[in-house]
Amino acid sequence: MTRKYNFCAGPAALPTPVLERAREELLDYEGRGLSVMEMSHRSPEFVTIAENAEANFRALLQVPDNYRVLFLQGGASTQFAMLPYNLLGNGGTPNYLYTGIWGKKAIAEARHLGGAHVAASSEANGLTAVPRPEDIQLSDDAAYLHYTDNETIGGLAFDYIPRSDVPLCCDMSSSILSRPLDVSRFGVIYAGAQKNIGPAGLTLVIVRDDLLDRAKPETPTMFNYRVMAENGSMYNTPPTYAWYLAGLVFDWLKNDVGGVEAIEVINARKAARLYDAIDASGFYSSPIAPINRSRMNVPFVLADESLNTVFLEEAEAAGLLNLKGHRSVGGMRASLYNAVSEAAVEALVGFMSDFEKRHG
Amino acid sequence: MTRKYNFCAGPAALPTPVLERAREELLDYEGRGLSVMEMSHRSPEFVTIAENAEANFRALLQVPDNYRVLFLQGGASTQFAMLPYNLLGNGGTPNYLYTGIWGKKAIAEARHLGGAHVAASSEANGLTAVPRPEDIQLSDDAAYLHYTDNETIGGLAFDYIPRSDVPLCCDMSSSILSRPLDVSRFGVIYAGAQKNIGPAGLTLVIVRDDLLDRAKPETPTMFNYRVMAENGSMYNTPPTYAWYLAGLVFDWLKNDVGGVEAIEVINARKAARLYDAIDASGFYSSPIAPINRSRMNVPFVLADESLNTVFLEEAEAAGLLNLKGHRSVGGMRASLYNAVSEAAVEALVGFMSDFEKRHG
Repeated sequence: MTRKYNFCAGPAALPTPVLERAREELLDYEGRGLSVMEMSHRSPEFVTIAENAEANFRALLQVPDNYRVLFLQGGASTQFAMLPYNLLGNGGTPNYLYTGIWGKKAIAEARHLGGAHVAASSEANGLTAVPRPEDIQLSDDAAYLHYTDNETIGGLAFDYIPRSDVPLCCDMSSSILSRPLDVSRFGVIYAGAQKNIGPAGLTLVIVRDDLLDRAKPETPTMFNYRVMAENGSMYNTPPTYAWYLAGLVFDWLKNDVGGVEAIEVINARKAARLYDAIDASGFYSSPIAPINRSRMNVPFVLADESLNTVFLEEAEAAGLLNLKGHRSVGGMRASLYNAVSEAAVEALVGFMSDFEKRHG
Repeated sequence: MTRKYNFCAGPAALPTPVLERAREELLDYEGRGLSVMEMSHRSPEFVTIAENAEANFRALLQVPDNYRVLFLQGGASTQFAMLPYNLLGNGGTPNYLYTGIWGKKAIAEARHLGGAHVAASSEANGLTAVPRPEDIQLSDDAAYLHYTDNETIGGLAFDYIPRSDVPLCCDMSSSILSRPLDVSRFGVIYAGAQKNIGPAGLTLVIVRDDLLDRAKPETPTMFNYRVMAENGSMYNTPPTYAWYLAGLVFDWLKNDVGGVEAIEVINARKAARLYDAIDASGFYSSPIAPINRSRMNVPFVLADESLNTVFLEEAEAAGLLNLKGHRSVGGMRASLYNAVSEAAVEALVGFMSDFEKRHG
């Protein structure tokens, strides 16, 4: 068995020690004679797994006591609908910042369900820089302000947390747990698991207590944050195995890596290594404004796009997987989530340099 | 490692060969250098896994070509909402049969979202027998008829498929794949995976093509069957690992067991063995009308309920796990899904007989 370097944007690389532990426990969890997958979600064993996962997640991000952490299903795309259902019960217009494809989808869903105001947009600069704070113009009746902290496809990341008098809501799918975070600045934070949390099929939501009372009456029960919060995310059967794996990832990040402060240093180093190599090259380039370059998703293009296929084939042969950019933008993209090692980045930079020498 | 006998109602026992194969492939799928969990859902490797799983599922149940099979999230509880959203776009009243706790929840959600007519109910007989065909009275404006094929908590199962001029919709969470099925009788069939399909966090929906055009305009995008169908259940990132595991279960059922015809024979034998032991005893009893006794979930009570705790403790010590009845009904429940072996049932019957001798 050889584990290759996996730069997939999501579902993404998981820490090898996490997978090894999962493998060890797969048929028999701690001598109980069954797999975690086969346990009742209401059994003492699974409840302990679930509570420990939440406790470690809360500890990692220092989530204040007046926030609930929900373990849900459906991905960020489901949150695009859940957010307006849960926060518009008192009326008002949801406000959005548009910085890329995911933000656009969130806006489209809010409009589909009633309406949305775009408070600032990166459209004019071709999605290469996020709006500056002074450019954000909320509507008078703003109910909340939503933004996408890190656009996974565009590789565009906020360099600041917007200030807002209305609840600030954020899609952090591809940046959560990559660095420390002041949760108290937010009303709602959500993230699909399949980047820095665990396998696909789990969605984490952090919601401030006082926002649990704003749901529209017609909110489907499974969409209602309050119902999920009051039932400890077990109103119905949760995705137990994904929850367990997320717990293993939190344990790894907290105890093996040393927490989000430690991973931030590593992530900064990884991203700098790759962006520096791109900038120093005459062959590779990044279209993103330096201040908004994502540490998690690094899109880049080759000077000669006719070499794209050869680049990807040679990369794969060298054990560097999933470097193709999203089908909607093309080019290349290297995702450098927490589980992607510095050795992986070093190997990528080495390959890119060699490729440039041979083809540049 | 010792695998114990697991009678959990869900998440439930999985076939040991499936878990062994998952373990073998966990860190490196077929020499690709990464786990299935770490693959892009759009990679050729995962698309092949997904397509094979669907093909095997379709083959097992002989799903006709004019039905779509969707791999979704959210469990049956989410389908309780999705169904009215998707089928009431042309108006009409949804009709329901009430035979237990899950049917009641489906009715409650339909009422929450607009209204429902109960076309027949098992309330008068204390949820111990399903309505007879002649008792079903649809409303004049019925848009569809929904029922719960097998009530997981009550252990109450339909002995027939209702006839209906409007689309017949069925929650088959705890009975799907336990026997052959004439899918052509139905408009929509759905099932949470965590009984006979795979791990929790995956929901299968079988929907007839012509029903994809009836969604209410305000249907959330992630709730829309048509959107899911047109995107091959990959409108957003699906629960890839659960999908893969479901594929392994389908493969096991089709190729190791011999299909749903073969498992039906085994399931009938397992259930008969346990019900016969209960009926022959003066100590155990089943409240359910014989014709409606579930083969999948066998609830039973002890003549002396003060022995419940001792029964469960001794059963667990004997390697017989999760026999406690649902908290809402009490007593005992043995779930005998496809992955529960005849040896497990034999061990349970032996234990029950021994317990009766010592305590009866």
